Amino acid sequence: MRLSSPMIKHQRINQAQSDIRIALQEAVGRLDGAAGGIVGYHFGWRDENGVRAEAASGRHRAGLLALLCAAADGADWRPALPAAVACELASNAATMQDDIIDEDTVRRGRRAAWTLFGAHRVLLACTAMNSLAVEILTEQRHPDAASAARTLSQTLVKLSVAQLQDIEFEQRSDVSLDEYLHMVDGKSCATFSCPCALGAMFAGAPGLYGLSAFGSQLGLIWQLRNDLLGIWGDSDQTGKPPLADLKKRKKTFPVIVALESAGRDRDELARILNRDDRLMSAEDSARAAVLVERCGGLHRTEQEIQIRLKAAIEPLSSFMGDDTARGDIMVLAEFFAKSTR
Amino acid sequence: MRLSSPMIKHQRINQAQSDIRIALQEAVGRLDGAAGGIVGYHFGWRDENGVRAEAASGRHRAGLLALLCAAADGADWRPALPAAVACELASNAATMQDDIIDEDTVRRGRRAAWTLFGAHRVLLACTAMNSLAVEILTEQRHPDAASAARTLSQTLVKLSVAQLQDIEFEQRSDVSLDEYLHMVDGKSCATFSCPCALGAMFAGAPGLYGLSAFGSQLGLIWQLRNDLLGIWGDSDQTGKPPLADLKKRKKTFPVIVALESAGRDRDELARILNRDDRLMSAEDSARAAVLVERCGGLHRTEQEIQIRLKAAIEPLSSFMGDDTARGDIMVLAEFFAKSTR
Repeated sequence: MRLSSPMIKHQRINQAQSDIRIALQEAVGRLDGAAGGIVGYHFGWRDENGVRAEAASGRHRAGLLALLCAAADGADWRPALPAAVACELASNAATMQDDIIDEDTVRRGRRAAWTLFGAHRVLLACTAMNSLAVEILTEQRHPDAASAARTLSQTLVKLSVAQLQDIEFEQRSDVSLDEYLHMVDGKSCATFSCPCALGAMFAGAPGLYGLSAFGSQLGLIWQLRNDLLGIWGDSDQTGKPPLADLKKRKKTFPVIVALESAGRDRDELARILNRDDRLMSAEDSARAAVLVERCGGLHRTEQEIQIRLKAAIEPLSSFMGDDTARGDIMVLAEFFAKSTR
Repeated sequence: MRLSSPMIKHQRINQAQSDIRIALQEAVGRLDGAAGGIVGYHFGWRDENGVRAEAASGRHRAGLLALLCAAADGADWRPALPAAVACELASNAATMQDDIIDEDTVRRGRRAAWTLFGAHRVLLACTAMNSLAVEILTEQRHPDAASAARTLSQTLVKLSVAQLQDIEFEQRSDVSLDEYLHMVDGKSCATFSCPCALGAMFAGAPGLYGLSAFGSQLGLIWQLRNDLLGIWGDSDQTGKPPLADLKKRKKTFPVIVALESAGRDRDELARILNRDDRLMSAEDSARAAVLVERCGGLHRTEQEIQIRLKAAIEPLSSFMGDDTARGDIMVLAEFFAKSTR
């Protein structure tokens, strides 16, 4: 099976991405010295020597959600640009930190920042990004500026706690689906629900606050999709080696589903996962992928994605009066349900 | 020569330390899972297994400055406790991160947190601490809550940029005194000037905002003192191996002074520092210490401490009407001028 990674082709979304990129470059321009170079490299507009470049800068998922949610009532999204920038900074800092922790060497088809600048420098740049995000929110003359900074900070606390849990899970063989879903909720909050909440705040539309629940569902869908890709994804599309998550013995959704089943396939899978090797062999991981699928891991994950997608989209009509705006959000939601990391 | 590390014996300061410790424990209690255990270990009230302990929890420098500055007009310091807690969290996160970057294995006479929990886990705990600090400030129903969060965030951006510069300096042989002082200002801002500013804000006393300049001077004094200790300090007192900074070829104030001098001693020192060894030998570092002293590095640093102490203390009378409060701050300033890390 092959899972592909489409580009978004949608005029308003492309316009929002362009607005975000400009505002983001301006914000990162405030970072003096090495920090600006590291962050600019990560976002693709600098090469490793600080020279202007034009590499893929990501889809600005967090920023897009902030803007499209701000515009969900048909209003202008521009007042929410500081929120979009803050969310992009925080969510990309998390990505950069994740690459270090997971020792992932490739990000968006280029070398991950830490492999060029060293883990210590990149971690300091991440601290600067998170703090710059709060700085940008709190300098707005907006009645909800403090509230927005509070929401973002709560999100980052939740994210750190969830990342710690994720590390713990790799060493445990008894992670339950509930524990896993709770951890994912914490991990994807920075990229998904927080931007929806902040977008609604900066649009001054309390009626849209419910959109943060939509963001949570979307975050989960995105993670489930990545879990599928980590086992059955095409490495040309994911930019990761084949079977990457299985080799690292990651307790992802399909693996947990399989381990919670019963029978000989399940027992064989458990034996492979519990073997003491650091990185699993190609043979073992290929076998494990077959076993996860046989134990229902693939089917159940695809099913869960459809359930969550319905749960995300159905309540939207009660928040949103504007058809165009709802159309944009739907495009985005469906895109996330099909997209790769 | 020996430099000692006295304890503060002063009733009001001890009372403030106790207030900070209680509020800090409550705040850290909000961190779920592994994060709470790591932070509690660092502060000394948990052992590595999460069991209650009574180890040295530090002097709460940042928190003390926030409270004593808030009370500088003779007012109650309690309204500034959230500011004190936020500053303690941010400044201790910086310390924990510093230990990882410098590979320092001992902190306050115990194993540094990263040597027990691993660098990745500790870094995630640090992100949680910085974000919890902002969360605590922005949840206060105080008109300056957003302003305080903004000041703290600007401080953390400045700190990260300065830490990146510090890493760069270790690889350069031509760091000027001006560059060094600018870097130190960025590095010590989180522990010294930001708490003074936030204390004044939460006391609602704009007349005290000038105290943040006092904090900046104090931060510099503290760094200069540490620079002396890093070369001539007694390792029983500093908890570091003898000549630790010299062995790492750190471009500290006394070393830069010596390198900016002229003559045979200076040239011999430059040769020792530029030799390609990773860690300097005991013999070379002992010789380098003698050379730094002969080139005026010790004398000039002690002189600078006295100049900065005068600059810190003199303007205080224009801010502060209350003798007791001024007395407290003076005790603290003189303490920092004599204290170790």
